[in-house]
Amino acid sequence: MSQAAAPLQQANCPLCQSLGGDLVYRNSRFRVIDALDADYPGFLRLVWNDHVREFSQLQRDDRLLCMDAVAHLEQFVLNTFKADKANLATLGNVVPHLHWHVIPRFVDDKHFPAPVWAAAKPGVGLVPKQQAILDTRSTWLPALRADLVRAFGT
Amino acid sequence: MSQAAAPLQQANCPLCQSLGGDLVYRNSRFRVIDALDADYPGFLRLVWNDHVREFSQLQRDDRLLCMDAVAHLEQFVLNTFKADKANLATLGNVVPHLHWHVIPRFVDDKHFPAPVWAAAKPGVGLVPKQQAILDTRSTWLPALRADLVRAFGT
Repeated sequence: MSQAAAPLQQANCPLCQSLGGDLVYRNSRFRVIDALDADYPGFLRLVWNDHVREFSQLQRDDRLLCMDAVAHLEQFVLNTFKADKANLATLGNVVPHLHWHVIPRFVDDKHFPAPVWAAAKPGVGLVPKQQAILDTRSTWLPALRADLVRAFGT
Repeated sequence: MSQAAAPLQQANCPLCQSLGGDLVYRNSRFRVIDALDADYPGFLRLVWNDHVREFSQLQRDDRLLCMDAVAHLEQFVLNTFKADKANLATLGNVVPHLHWHVIPRFVDDKHFPAPVWAAAKPGVGLVPKQQAILDTRSTWLPALRADLVRAFGT
């Protein structure tokens, strides 16, 4: 195996040592996982394979690729899940290894219009569109995978 | 005035009708504001001038420009404010007009490692590096403005 092709890894980083969720798609630069968030079905994450701390530390070509993929995931949650709004964030305070949260939001979900990290509205469970995402996972997950392969190769 | 050059605006949108903060920089495509967040000095926002709802609805060239500028702001908060971590997000649940939050985070700040939208740790005010951002605003703000003019024109 070429040394240059191996992702830069750090021994004590959870996103270097594990996929970080249920793998949807992977290429040499990044992977996409289903975060399996109990409150937010369809919450996707793009994880950069190399151990890079901050978004702006990517080389420009990698930044472009990264945001093409994030935009692709955003379009997916808007078009397929019929999300009312997409939320995008890269925080990394707990795990400082570049990853992007792509979150489908619904006007009646348990935090809307607050961010998903705010205090939840009491007594709100999954809303119908979120339940539908869970119920149709065996359909949309392979469709998303095929879509990413078409757009970003293998 | 050319019709094409006028930003797309919506009558009931606060980010179409006002700058949305203290203006640092503006060009024909986007502006940068100091959010004047009392808990997070140096919290910057990039606001797209046109009324665009979702990041992925930008044309690709505009997306590239937008993220070049966001990465530029991120480097600024890391290098100038010596932030321990940068946080980036575009949510828009309350104001669905494309804007990016660029937030300098410190390991002892009032939410760290949680997102700034989570419940605050009780009794934590501004930490010394945040107070320093406030105290040096008359220095860094014009430097940031000059830096953005150099990088993104007028």
